[in-house]
Amino acid sequence: MNVVGSPTRTIWLAPDGATFEVIDQTRLPHELVVKRLTTLTEAADAIRTMVVRGAPLIGVTAAYGLALAMREDASGEGIERAVETLAATRPTAVNLRWALDRMAAALRRPEVNDRVAAAYRLAAALAEEDVATCRAIGEHGAALIRDVHHRTGRAVNVLTHCNAGWLAAVEWGTALAPIYVAHEEGVPVHVWVDETRPRNQGAALTAYELGGRGVPHTIVADNAGGHMMQHGRVDLCIVGSDRTTASGDVANKIGTYLKALAAYDNGVPFYAALPSSTIDWSLGDGVAEIPIEERSAREVTHVTGRSEAGEIVTVQVSAPGSAAANPAFDVTPARLVTGIITERGVAPATRSGLATLFPDRPAGRL
Amino acid sequence: MNVVGSPTRTIWLAPDGATFEVIDQTRLPHELVVKRLTTLTEAADAIRTMVVRGAPLIGVTAAYGLALAMREDASGEGIERAVETLAATRPTAVNLRWALDRMAAALRRPEVNDRVAAAYRLAAALAEEDVATCRAIGEHGAALIRDVHHRTGRAVNVLTHCNAGWLAAVEWGTALAPIYVAHEEGVPVHVWVDETRPRNQGAALTAYELGGRGVPHTIVADNAGGHMMQHGRVDLCIVGSDRTTASGDVANKIGTYLKALAAYDNGVPFYAALPSSTIDWSLGDGVAEIPIEERSAREVTHVTGRSEAGEIVTVQVSAPGSAAANPAFDVTPARLVTGIITERGVAPATRSGLATLFPDRPAGRL
Repeated sequence: MNVVGSPTRTIWLAPDGATFEVIDQTRLPHELVVKRLTTLTEAADAIRTMVVRGAPLIGVTAAYGLALAMREDASGEGIERAVETLAATRPTAVNLRWALDRMAAALRRPEVNDRVAAAYRLAAALAEEDVATCRAIGEHGAALIRDVHHRTGRAVNVLTHCNAGWLAAVEWGTALAPIYVAHEEGVPVHVWVDETRPRNQGAALTAYELGGRGVPHTIVADNAGGHMMQHGRVDLCIVGSDRTTASGDVANKIGTYLKALAAYDNGVPFYAALPSSTIDWSLGDGVAEIPIEERSAREVTHVTGRSEAGEIVTVQVSAPGSAAANPAFDVTPARLVTGIITERGVAPATRSGLATLFPDRPAGRL
Repeated sequence: MNVVGSPTRTIWLAPDGATFEVIDQTRLPHELVVKRLTTLTEAADAIRTMVVRGAPLIGVTAAYGLALAMREDASGEGIERAVETLAATRPTAVNLRWALDRMAAALRRPEVNDRVAAAYRLAAALAEEDVATCRAIGEHGAALIRDVHHRTGRAVNVLTHCNAGWLAAVEWGTALAPIYVAHEEGVPVHVWVDETRPRNQGAALTAYELGGRGVPHTIVADNAGGHMMQHGRVDLCIVGSDRTTASGDVANKIGTYLKALAAYDNGVPFYAALPSSTIDWSLGDGVAEIPIEERSAREVTHVTGRSEAGEIVTVQVSAPGSAAANPAFDVTPARLVTGIITERGVAPATRSGLATLFPDRPAGRL
């Protein structure tokens, strides 16, 4: 993606060939700051504090974190410990677990002395795979946008929640990939960007991304989407996912479920776009079974932004002394999801729909 | 209500007997500032800039604004002009129109010289009527909360959106009145307070009110309510309304519709609490017919709060250069509303339910 004139990704190996660098997403949209991660601890902290975020990028960062860990201790216990540390950073996103399991399995095979090199190779391969996967999601999803344009002859209004763009992956993104591909192809698209409280990833990251690519977009409060859909101003919704069950229930940023309800109520197609690594084949009931991360109340009560004087300031918005709760994700039942856009195509959000597209899925509780 | 130790209302006649004073709600929860309104223009500005807000309080402020206008020009044209000025301040809340129509009709009767005194008398009567109406709403609504407590034996979790408390009325409020009455009676209540973007009336005003009265409460992002309801953490929802159709469609703060959808999907009762002056008997289809105010994009892109240094600072949260849209209200179709809590009791959200409770309603398009 084009960031201030030069193409870059969200994560890359530093010139030293050992440490790696990421865009510090807690500083956007106000400052584009690159952060170097040099140890396992720093990588885990970057995931926990959301310097990097987004299911695919969390997975790739964990893979690079494991590579850093191998430099510190490449023994079997070293692998276990590092996997445990990284897995504990975010409980909902399953890509984290997926990337760690894949890395750990591959790292146990070579001699201890070869594990550092193997880890860097595998992490780089995971990153490349993520780029290709997201591009494929973009192409499959773009067809849906193109269809609406062909039917209506006008710009297609897509509503998205949170940030599932290139900042959430290595490149392209998941929910935004179809929009980027459609935009590239000249299909007119306009995006309604949910601001996505409490961390404002929509207003801060998705708007930043879309602005950078010249995609027309408008930020709205999370509260506004239902009204927009009642008045025919949304053609389709596309969101990402942090974990999707084998039955098609979609865990995604808190508030996604509310948009899916409104889409269903107004006959607006609602899609989740995700790499198959986001599918937890072992789960059947998302509401009951997917663990939902509870984050700090301060994310709700305080807001950070740029003052007129250009300073980055954090202010308290809420009444002093009032408590806040902050569940970070919710689960949208499959019955509200029109389809799941994956790297292999669009599947119905059903057990058989997903199973048909992924006959080679890991053995689950099907 | 008890504000910092001394009972007060949201609006009152100043000691000079001519001007009136209001709590400046744009400064809460950070500062309790009283603002004096001395002219028609100042009263209209106070409504437009949301120094005062909430359907019932807007109506009473408009009545006092008309009293101020009578001091400037008590002629027939003076009445017309003042009504026009005040009516143009907020398009969605119908109480504004209702209060102005009532005042104007009564003011045209006396001699020009008697109109100033009549206007003050009538505005004061409207204010007293609002207090009694809201108290009655509180008593009818408290029965619903009491019932849940009797059934479950535990604290009742009520979710509310925006601020429809005493700050939105002269006293008591509408949606919060049942909570205050139940709390007074010793029924244990806990309130989930939607922060209510973009103006944060929940986090800033509702939390401030509930904290002041010692009612247990927790602020949540507007996105969180659906998740809370999926997990059985909400017993009932109570919201206010800015305009309700004769058929029971409820216009209220943007995002209300999304909560009603989630309540319906999870079998959680969803009530709107409102004085009958909020009912627009001339309307039958809320989504098609209720005008929705579009407010400044800056309310979405910028947030005001208190910095660590104690200063009130406004910061931009969104990506620079990105546009925002800001519809201030949405309409919840009657099919999602369990009941309408009015000063006369709880009615089903249907044409016949409301008509039965208000046989003396103004002639409408029934």
